Amino acid sequence: MQGTSQTPSRPTTAYTPTDRTVPTRSPDRASYDKELVHAILDEGYVCHLGFVRDGAPVVLPTLYGRVGERLYVHGSTGSRPLRMAGGADPGLPVCLTVTHVDALVLARSAFHHSINYRSVVVHGTAHDVTDPDEKRQALDALVDHVVPGRSYDSRPANKKELAATAVIRLDLDEVSAKVRTGGVNDEPEDLALPHWAGLVPLRKGYEAPVADPGLAPGTALPGYLAEL
Amino acid sequence: MQGTSQTPSRPTTAYTPTDRTVPTRSPDRASYDKELVHAILDEGYVCHLGFVRDGAPVVLPTLYGRVGERLYVHGSTGSRPLRMAGGADPGLPVCLTVTHVDALVLARSAFHHSINYRSVVVHGTAHDVTDPDEKRQALDALVDHVVPGRSYDSRPANKKELAATAVIRLDLDEVSAKVRTGGVNDEPEDLALPHWAGLVPLRKGYEAPVADPGLAPGTALPGYLAEL
Repeated sequence: MQGTSQTPSRPTTAYTPTDRTVPTRSPDRASYDKELVHAILDEGYVCHLGFVRDGAPVVLPTLYGRVGERLYVHGSTGSRPLRMAGGADPGLPVCLTVTHVDALVLARSAFHHSINYRSVVVHGTAHDVTDPDEKRQALDALVDHVVPGRSYDSRPANKKELAATAVIRLDLDEVSAKVRTGGVNDEPEDLALPHWAGLVPLRKGYEAPVADPGLAPGTALPGYLAEL
Repeated sequence: MQGTSQTPSRPTTAYTPTDRTVPTRSPDRASYDKELVHAILDEGYVCHLGFVRDGAPVVLPTLYGRVGERLYVHGSTGSRPLRMAGGADPGLPVCLTVTHVDALVLARSAFHHSINYRSVVVHGTAHDVTDPDEKRQALDALVDHVVPGRSYDSRPANKKELAATAVIRLDLDEVSAKVRTGGVNDEPEDLALPHWAGLVPLRKGYEAPVADPGLAPGTALPGYLAEL
């Protein structure tokens, strides 16, 4: 975000909390730190995008990419939220949420069961991306969010594909992260109970890639996939 | 769902599609099969719950449990969506979405990159659970969704904890699943391109449990955790 350093009331290292980014529960778990928010966003590629249709909420899973302080979501030009955001104005009010689950937290008491997680919630208005260069950059970011470096090792979208793809932009402005880390928080009087308590970390990462049977002869597994 | 067999127009094995559960895109990936919906729901425990606040969407990650054709979400009595659903009527319009990512689908063309996933989207109205027995059953279901069998091996909630916990119910009625499986769908003219293409399956499951340092002497790792 070039230029935000000219606004002393808003440090470039943190988002400004608003009424809807300050949680009513566990405010100690909330953070507005940009580095933390970016790290949580960059570790994932599937978000849950919420919008309002006929007065009722709709939540759909979809891929996303980040370029600086902008998030991008793409889809067919025929898809509902992308049609609703169609045209640059007035845009579509959305809430975009990304969640990573790190561990199960098993307490001696049912009440204190929890999970360790890191989430980011972004509120704002999504706008249709009409600039061709921004659209191409957004689509590269979407592919590279899933596999870093992949956009350079695939055929770029052609004119027909670009025309069939809608991209919407959501600025990172009204943003919060929420994180739970650490161990079990049982009541002191429960510590002697005979129930096992502790953390169960989730497995992360990927299994070995499975090549398409029709690979062109001599096509080797690229390094960026071997390192995943 | 006792009694639905008396409604010939609605087979007990499938949910009835509605305008908002028929996707505008990839309708071939949509399913209303109850068994499939239940299986997707039962494999997870974190959902993304959407609701409308001051006309804008809000999407929050939260735990859920299933009992038959009912989903339950819990939280502090002070939390925003649970307060908004407070009182049995009129309830809170919500959209509850559960997504599992199974594999990355890397195509030769950027355009055909995708992911294999299974998701369930539930539309409806959440109501506060006031019946104490239903509330206890819901809380057990929430714990058992995370680790099957765990609710029997932990101290049940006491009166104070129950009073501090709000539970909302969402009936499985307007429901759809969406599933992408299979391999890469590249254009015929791209098959000879020298880009690696194929699937990268996600690792699933858990790492070895990490016991709380203060376990009561002699507390062994229970079988249901060793089998996770």
